[in-house]
Amino acid sequence: MSNVDHQLIIVGGGPAGLTAGLYASRAMLDVVLLEKGAAGGQVMLTDWIDNYPGFPEGISGFDLADKMETQAKRFDLEVKLAPVIKMDLIGPVKTLHLEDGSTLTCRALIITTGARPNQINIPGEVEFTGRGVSYCATCDAPFYRGKTVAVIGGGNTAVQEAVHLTKFADKVYVIHRRDALRATKIVQDKAFANDKIEFIWDTVPTEVVGDIFKGVTGLALKNVTSGATSNIDLDGVFVLIGIRPNMEMLPLDQLDNDQGFIHTNVEMHTSQPGVFAAGDIIYKNFRQVANAVGEGCVACLSAERYLENNE
Amino acid sequence: MSNVDHQLIIVGGGPAGLTAGLYASRAMLDVVLLEKGAAGGQVMLTDWIDNYPGFPEGISGFDLADKMETQAKRFDLEVKLAPVIKMDLIGPVKTLHLEDGSTLTCRALIITTGARPNQINIPGEVEFTGRGVSYCATCDAPFYRGKTVAVIGGGNTAVQEAVHLTKFADKVYVIHRRDALRATKIVQDKAFANDKIEFIWDTVPTEVVGDIFKGVTGLALKNVTSGATSNIDLDGVFVLIGIRPNMEMLPLDQLDNDQGFIHTNVEMHTSQPGVFAAGDIIYKNFRQVANAVGEGCVACLSAERYLENNE
Repeated sequence: MSNVDHQLIIVGGGPAGLTAGLYASRAMLDVVLLEKGAAGGQVMLTDWIDNYPGFPEGISGFDLADKMETQAKRFDLEVKLAPVIKMDLIGPVKTLHLEDGSTLTCRALIITTGARPNQINIPGEVEFTGRGVSYCATCDAPFYRGKTVAVIGGGNTAVQEAVHLTKFADKVYVIHRRDALRATKIVQDKAFANDKIEFIWDTVPTEVVGDIFKGVTGLALKNVTSGATSNIDLDGVFVLIGIRPNMEMLPLDQLDNDQGFIHTNVEMHTSQPGVFAAGDIIYKNFRQVANAVGEGCVACLSAERYLENNE
Repeated sequence: MSNVDHQLIIVGGGPAGLTAGLYASRAMLDVVLLEKGAAGGQVMLTDWIDNYPGFPEGISGFDLADKMETQAKRFDLEVKLAPVIKMDLIGPVKTLHLEDGSTLTCRALIITTGARPNQINIPGEVEFTGRGVSYCATCDAPFYRGKTVAVIGGGNTAVQEAVHLTKFADKVYVIHRRDALRATKIVQDKAFANDKIEFIWDTVPTEVVGDIFKGVTGLALKNVTSGATSNIDLDGVFVLIGIRPNMEMLPLDQLDNDQGFIHTNVEMHTSQPGVFAAGDIIYKNFRQVANAVGEGCVACLSAERYLENNE
């Protein structure tokens, strides 16, 4: 093997990256995981996770990320705080340019930089995230049995999830800035036929109202045509206005992608030989901790096989 | 919806099936999971699992399966002991024929029946499984640091894993019934060049020798050409002679498959609309708890979407 800094580099320390790191360090690969902030990723912001298998009572996002990192470090995974700002992925040696001006090279790379939900950017939103403000109905809907919630958004995901929420909540408001939905007709029809759903048209939320003890208690609203303001009482707010890939450091001209979400095959190969991806950054329909972990495992085993055949 | 017994049926209670069951019951689908024996699947036979993310010190296979089942049952998943002997998957209603002569119908089906490693079928093998006899080097190799182990087999997996084992073990015997390997040349060359590997040709194991306290201590061998017998001292035996899908109840003429392993796309759809599959029964390269869980999650979310669009 010609001189590279590491056999394998993993960029991103969420569940996918930590799983790849666990597998790689346990297999005694020369590996380093680069994280731009604290390890854990998006899951760190999740108050309580009920659907990651193995924890009968659920577990906090913070604790789960912490356990995954501790486990990987038991096998001596090196985790470095080193933001990557640029990558060159063409050819057998991959080069990462770090924020401090230095570079790191490797033979195989696993990209697990994740994604983040779009925010509405109003007062109270960040403060009450995980305390009544949620960005994932599949994850959090069951916590709202018998409650009143609002969905912000008018696309397919927002409207589908509003219908899903009616299995649990007594009342679901759909708050949309226009007077018509962007969701497809079949999805719209289901929502219109559901008497637990009430649409609030031409309206934007202006503040998440809450209480330090109780979490979210309501939303302040503004009608964008009349300018009228109002308040509604709520137990939860689902912000479902899309998700953005963490792609700022990715050379998108070197990787097949869809608006920044990286295309992979079932074994987590990207279009660039030696480059693998897993977790929320990949192009897919479902973004859960459980499948991020599975993809991280497969990405590492594929990278290991690639290294065996190319060294 | 016309009358079916359940919206969704899951066949098989290993990690993939229990994860699908957790997601389905938590989403309030009308679902039942059918198991032919105790839930848990192949993982129940695994002594210690170090690489399922979330358990820093590892966890026994029994405990992990138990936790997954408890978690799914917290959301009222119904688990039935009901061996399936035949299925009819064509058309919108899927029919399962049970061992007791009854039938169950559903709109969507998730197949997670798993697979089992081929055994050598010699005395001591079953007794010492999980106590020195292993069927997965990726899973168990790190437990043999500084030890002496044998690999039984001569195919690609056996020889690749023998090379992998040399990262941990001081000595790796490869015991093969012929005088040449079936593995590809590139794989063979790596093994021949590795001075920790010693080949024992034309030889079959006749007994796993062990001790109730220490587990495996060696193998009794027989040369198939000369008939000579011998013994070697070992700390572990890796039986890597292939894996068989649990396909006896599957209508393989109704599902695209490769020798019983079911073909799926990235969203776990099989070739039959409304039928999904996950875990060791699917056609894939890597069989770990972590990816079985990810696939179980995706299979359920895909089934949920299918039901929404077809009811």
